[in-house]
Amino acid sequence: MQNQASRSAPRPGGRSARVQAAVHQAVQRLQDQAGRDGLTIPAIAAEAGVTPSTIYRRWGDLGQLLADVALEQLRPESPPEDTGSFEGDLRAWLAQYFEEMASEPGRAMLRDVLGSAGTDGQERCMHFCTAQIDALRARGLQRGEAVVATESIVDQVIAPLMYRILFAGTTPTTADIERRLAPNLPR
Amino acid sequence: MQNQASRSAPRPGGRSARVQAAVHQAVQRLQDQAGRDGLTIPAIAAEAGVTPSTIYRRWGDLGQLLADVALEQLRPESPPEDTGSFEGDLRAWLAQYFEEMASEPGRAMLRDVLGSAGTDGQERCMHFCTAQIDALRARGLQRGEAVVATESIVDQVIAPLMYRILFAGTTPTTADIERRLAPNLPR
Repeated sequence: MQNQASRSAPRPGGRSARVQAAVHQAVQRLQDQAGRDGLTIPAIAAEAGVTPSTIYRRWGDLGQLLADVALEQLRPESPPEDTGSFEGDLRAWLAQYFEEMASEPGRAMLRDVLGSAGTDGQERCMHFCTAQIDALRARGLQRGEAVVATESIVDQVIAPLMYRILFAGTTPTTADIERRLAPNLPR
Repeated sequence: MQNQASRSAPRPGGRSARVQAAVHQAVQRLQDQAGRDGLTIPAIAAEAGVTPSTIYRRWGDLGQLLADVALEQLRPESPPEDTGSFEGDLRAWLAQYFEEMASEPGRAMLRDVLGSAGTDGQERCMHFCTAQIDALRARGLQRGEAVVATESIVDQVIAPLMYRILFAGTTPTTADIERRLAPNLPR
């Protein structure tokens, strides 16, 4: 399977990075002007000043381009907040993560990513999540704290609440998070 | 939020059921002929012999129509297999459920359902799953067996493996299912 979107990872300063930035900005301008419905690759190419074949070559199809733009907007910009303890960090990050995923931009990103063919966007979305948990674990270990496996947090907290965001359209509450997190904290 | 697809639930013998059948068949014929890319509501309407506004009124947009067709194809046709015990029934059903969801038609259905706006398709997809677990629980209770809550199976088995199908593109193995099912069986 071709790894379309990873080929569009920014290479700072290069032609590739400039093309990506121009195309992403074109998608955002056209979405702001006219919404999602009229978006086409030829229209995006014209707005970005590139050829349609540049877009097809790099992103594969419209769905994968939209997923790439949506993921870029939701990419975490900084390491999770440092509250002084692994437990506190995890609780703060989970609250923020689910608030973001259940928000309208978060749901739109999930629709774009999960509605598109290929697996690259999906894997990046999962990586954004596991890399943040890994960072919290590493910080906890540096403090000399007991931590838990990233996979346990994914299985026991992320997956059940993401399932409900996706399939029940509900927004996880603090209590929903706590009920699944508490039994999985280090003892 | 409008509940588009549930309005399209079949009413046997009525005009509504005939329109639904004609439109679903038109989608399938056009997909078989030319794939997904060229599908439009006007083309589907022409093929089905209805007006485009009939389709817009009933399904909202192309994404929701495609999700409805995909769900209809994956709707369980019979109660889960009776193996003689709750534990055996659950194991047999989970194996079949994940095989179906991770298959190419299953993944295409998930893309259509999770990529479309609204929450109706998503909720029907979740209901297909919880209704089957409820049926296994009821059968177990009738046999006088101990059973577990449907929510536990969703949280502990369905959600973590569905998360991996969706975000990691992986196919759950028998061992993946067993590892998550075993601690959640009745004691």
